[in-house]
Amino acid sequence: MGKRLLVIGGVAAGPKAAAKAKRCDPQMEIVIYQGEEEISYAGCGLPYYVSGVIKARDVLISRTPGKFAQDGIKVQKNHQIEKIDVQSRTISGRKIGSGEAFSDQFDRLVIATGAYPIRPKIEGIDLGNVFYLRSIFDADALFEKVKSERVRNVVIAGGGYIGLEMAESLVQLGKNVKIVELAPQILTLFDGDFAGILRQYLEKKGVEIFTSEGIEALRGEGGKVTHVQTAARVLEANAVLMSLGVRPRVELAKKAGLRIGETGAIWVNEKMETSAEGIYAAGDCAETTHLITGKKVWVPLGSTANKQGRVAGVNLCGGNAIFPGVMGTAIFKVFDFNVAKTGLNMREAEKEGFHPIQAIVKGFDRAHYYPGGKESTLKVIADQETGCILGGQAIGEGPSDKFIDILAMALHGKMTCKELANADMAYAPPFSPVLSPVIVAANVLTNKLEGRVRGIQVEEVREKLSTSRESFQVLDVREEDEVKRKRIPGSTWIPLWKLEKRVGELDKKKEIAVHCESGLRSYKACLKLQREGFEKVKNIDGGMLCWCDDLERER
Amino acid sequence: MGKRLLVIGGVAAGPKAAAKAKRCDPQMEIVIYQGEEEISYAGCGLPYYVSGVIKARDVLISRTPGKFAQDGIKVQKNHQIEKIDVQSRTISGRKIGSGEAFSDQFDRLVIATGAYPIRPKIEGIDLGNVFYLRSIFDADALFEKVKSERVRNVVIAGGGYIGLEMAESLVQLGKNVKIVELAPQILTLFDGDFAGILRQYLEKKGVEIFTSEGIEALRGEGGKVTHVQTAARVLEANAVLMSLGVRPRVELAKKAGLRIGETGAIWVNEKMETSAEGIYAAGDCAETTHLITGKKVWVPLGSTANKQGRVAGVNLCGGNAIFPGVMGTAIFKVFDFNVAKTGLNMREAEKEGFHPIQAIVKGFDRAHYYPGGKESTLKVIADQETGCILGGQAIGEGPSDKFIDILAMALHGKMTCKELANADMAYAPPFSPVLSPVIVAANVLTNKLEGRVRGIQVEEVREKLSTSRESFQVLDVREEDEVKRKRIPGSTWIPLWKLEKRVGELDKKKEIAVHCESGLRSYKACLKLQREGFEKVKNIDGGMLCWCDDLERER
Repeated sequence: MGKRLLVIGGVAAGPKAAAKAKRCDPQMEIVIYQGEEEISYAGCGLPYYVSGVIKARDVLISRTPGKFAQDGIKVQKNHQIEKIDVQSRTISGRKIGSGEAFSDQFDRLVIATGAYPIRPKIEGIDLGNVFYLRSIFDADALFEKVKSERVRNVVIAGGGYIGLEMAESLVQLGKNVKIVELAPQILTLFDGDFAGILRQYLEKKGVEIFTSEGIEALRGEGGKVTHVQTAARVLEANAVLMSLGVRPRVELAKKAGLRIGETGAIWVNEKMETSAEGIYAAGDCAETTHLITGKKVWVPLGSTANKQGRVAGVNLCGGNAIFPGVMGTAIFKVFDFNVAKTGLNMREAEKEGFHPIQAIVKGFDRAHYYPGGKESTLKVIADQETGCILGGQAIGEGPSDKFIDILAMALHGKMTCKELANADMAYAPPFSPVLSPVIVAANVLTNKLEGRVRGIQVEEVREKLSTSRESFQVLDVREEDEVKRKRIPGSTWIPLWKLEKRVGELDKKKEIAVHCESGLRSYKACLKLQREGFEKVKNIDGGMLCWCDDLERER
Repeated sequence: MGKRLLVIGGVAAGPKAAAKAKRCDPQMEIVIYQGEEEISYAGCGLPYYVSGVIKARDVLISRTPGKFAQDGIKVQKNHQIEKIDVQSRTISGRKIGSGEAFSDQFDRLVIATGAYPIRPKIEGIDLGNVFYLRSIFDADALFEKVKSERVRNVVIAGGGYIGLEMAESLVQLGKNVKIVELAPQILTLFDGDFAGILRQYLEKKGVEIFTSEGIEALRGEGGKVTHVQTAARVLEANAVLMSLGVRPRVELAKKAGLRIGETGAIWVNEKMETSAEGIYAAGDCAETTHLITGKKVWVPLGSTANKQGRVAGVNLCGGNAIFPGVMGTAIFKVFDFNVAKTGLNMREAEKEGFHPIQAIVKGFDRAHYYPGGKESTLKVIADQETGCILGGQAIGEGPSDKFIDILAMALHGKMTCKELANADMAYAPPFSPVLSPVIVAANVLTNKLEGRVRGIQVEEVREKLSTSRESFQVLDVREEDEVKRKRIPGSTWIPLWKLEKRVGELDKKKEIAVHCESGLRSYKACLKLQREGFEKVKNIDGGMLCWCDDLERER
């Protein structure tokens, strides 16, 4: 007789581990315990189900219990596990509904208990029409509610991925949507400049956004929410979506005496084995390693859960698979913007002791002369000491996913920007500019590394403009039509081709930050100014691509 | 006074080197000599200009001489260089039109003379309406001709990128298009299975294709081509496009005594410097290194030309840039198919002494439940000894470009398939299946490396079916509806879920090749058969994805 494998959790990592184990060792007896009615569903697809992009609920269910049975895997739905006994190799719990107690023996165990949404302890949190979006049942409830026309005003608490994806879904359903975020920016895993680009875009789509503003209470009438009280205002709300993030579900593991990591998730080694032999953890309940910093991190994602489930499945059959860790790659879609990142952002890189520099460029999906092009703004970050790529961000209607996957692979390959600049990527006019935007960014970084021209971030420009006007000036070297569209308040405008003649208009004693639309012309202008004896010359990273507010229009 | 840089060739690498040099050293005097009327145009965009996708000719011109002048770079159009004198540091030539002689002095020289199309020495090659597609003037001539309705039948000589891109353009202009290719397959840089997928697709689009068939003569009337005589037939032709490939234009360099490499292109070091100090070569006239084999190769491509031009530009100013080489990455679009490759194909890998194994999987651009998905068939090749990725190919309407760029980066990072299987790529339902197809392929390769199941290529199956029926059988484990659509002639059909019961119907003594649609079910079937004591079990790489001809339909 084969060994007995029990799996706690039936959404992503659990079923994957079970299926892989069955292929590796067909003799193994396998039971998946799931505390809900549904199993093996696509958690990441829920926002699109709520919005109606995905029409049928059942396409989200990738495998039914019947399919598992065909492969010889038993599924026990509505079985809530309450205890793991590491010594006696048993688990025990109760059936949902009947409350009937049960227990089971295992040789191997996979803990895939996932994560749960944060539920803040504020007044009114138990009111009706306060929703979460974690399980397919949360989605059902939300879907049912938002179909109603009486729900006109929806407040989303939290400006992370789920909140932003749902903002789109709700706007498309005709709702008035407001996002309240405690941090100074939405999209806190990105740098402020890129979060600013997204904010401006969302506001154009009609989403109101309030940052640096916590939710203090929910007010209601007749048991249902009617208003959201923030630190600064009261917002009308027929429904509230709480998307303040998630926490790993580790109570079972903790009670069983398994080691909990510094991140608060279950500690595992590279083989996905917990501190107890033969007991594995995978997916959103487990921590992992950040491959750039080497530190333990907790980054719950469906793709990671699947990889970890596979690794656990191989190893619990006696195999030797490894999950080394993650790069912090993530992506989501909001309206027509594709928003993606990998590696470290500027803040994180500084915090980790790197000396990050960044290049921000326009990234088209095809040659400039090939019609129908779409563009993303692309940022690539490198370390000034080593030249190694540290991360990247991309935002826009263009191929953010492709850019970020290329950069994620560059991170896996520990590439420097010089190496990246010569990467042999697929070029033909319908697919890419002749030099991939990733390569252009790598070239900009190489120029910076070689100290030709220093960069300055828009945030710093904005701050210096408001605090140090007497020692700081901004030079705009674009053409007249561009300047008419949008310009930085207080900037001096001299087109690049007039710079040589009009350089006397600039103050050599002041620090000078130069910009154009994206950075090439301002780079040339910086070189010119340096030759003219200007000492404190900086190129504004991303130029107007990243300058999103305080716009001054000429009449 | 600055140094004097002369650049011979004004299309891609030459202007790039000039522009970069001017930025690195603004004191440098720079002149670009170009033997044509136009400069700095997008050679890769020409097929789309002929087809009308690109409406205006001038968008193909990325920089006019006026723009170069603004940056302080002089352009001499219609100046044909006839001689480089390495000793006296001079070049000399004649003006096109007037025939007037000129000469010029240089401190630094960049040779960017490009390539020219192969012109076979066959009867009738000088007839009218025989076209090439290399320069913008070739495109003008072809464009002018094919607009005419009297041109109904076009024969394309050569089934490479340009020929195939132009096949699309010409079909869309309403022409009858026939491709004649001397090799046994079109698309010779790809493996036969993938070339077969493309051939079947093109035939459905109305393109007739004749392989293993050389063109022996062109026949004409009144000085214009009317027929093409191949080894096997006579084809009507109002126009012929010769796209038999290109050769590096090295005559000037050769005459000057510069070293010509084993590939027939100009030898350069990693700094793009030729055998003569201070003389650089870049773009289609120069050879480079294949980064997997370490051998010299000649792979003319616009993206490579730009990178090499930049490197030459930096170095001739005293900088220190390196162009290490290429991975053989390439892509093109034909109708709605995106066709891309990187690294070595199976044949090349074997020839280079590797022991290649391959995984072929379906590659969608989004989660299966997210509507509107597009699919490419993806092949990833790895070395059985080291597990290192060797190359990849992708073909279909899906994101072939993204898959191949990811693989190209894996090649740059010298990744093994185990490492690739855990790569942290961007996942959300609108952008990718939960496991990227690249990762799925890497997992399949890992399984093969661990010797769980061996693979067999469709070509070998086809051959064994016709020569060794007595010792070879094919097992199809798909469902009834799939089998009805298309099946391999002579195969035995037992659905996977009935295999256990019906295994007795199979002959244990015969080798057995198992397939399903793409490979997962047949993989499971192989494991089952091995447990049942079958010894010679193989999984058909790519299954029905790669089985393109000899189709047997059940009625």
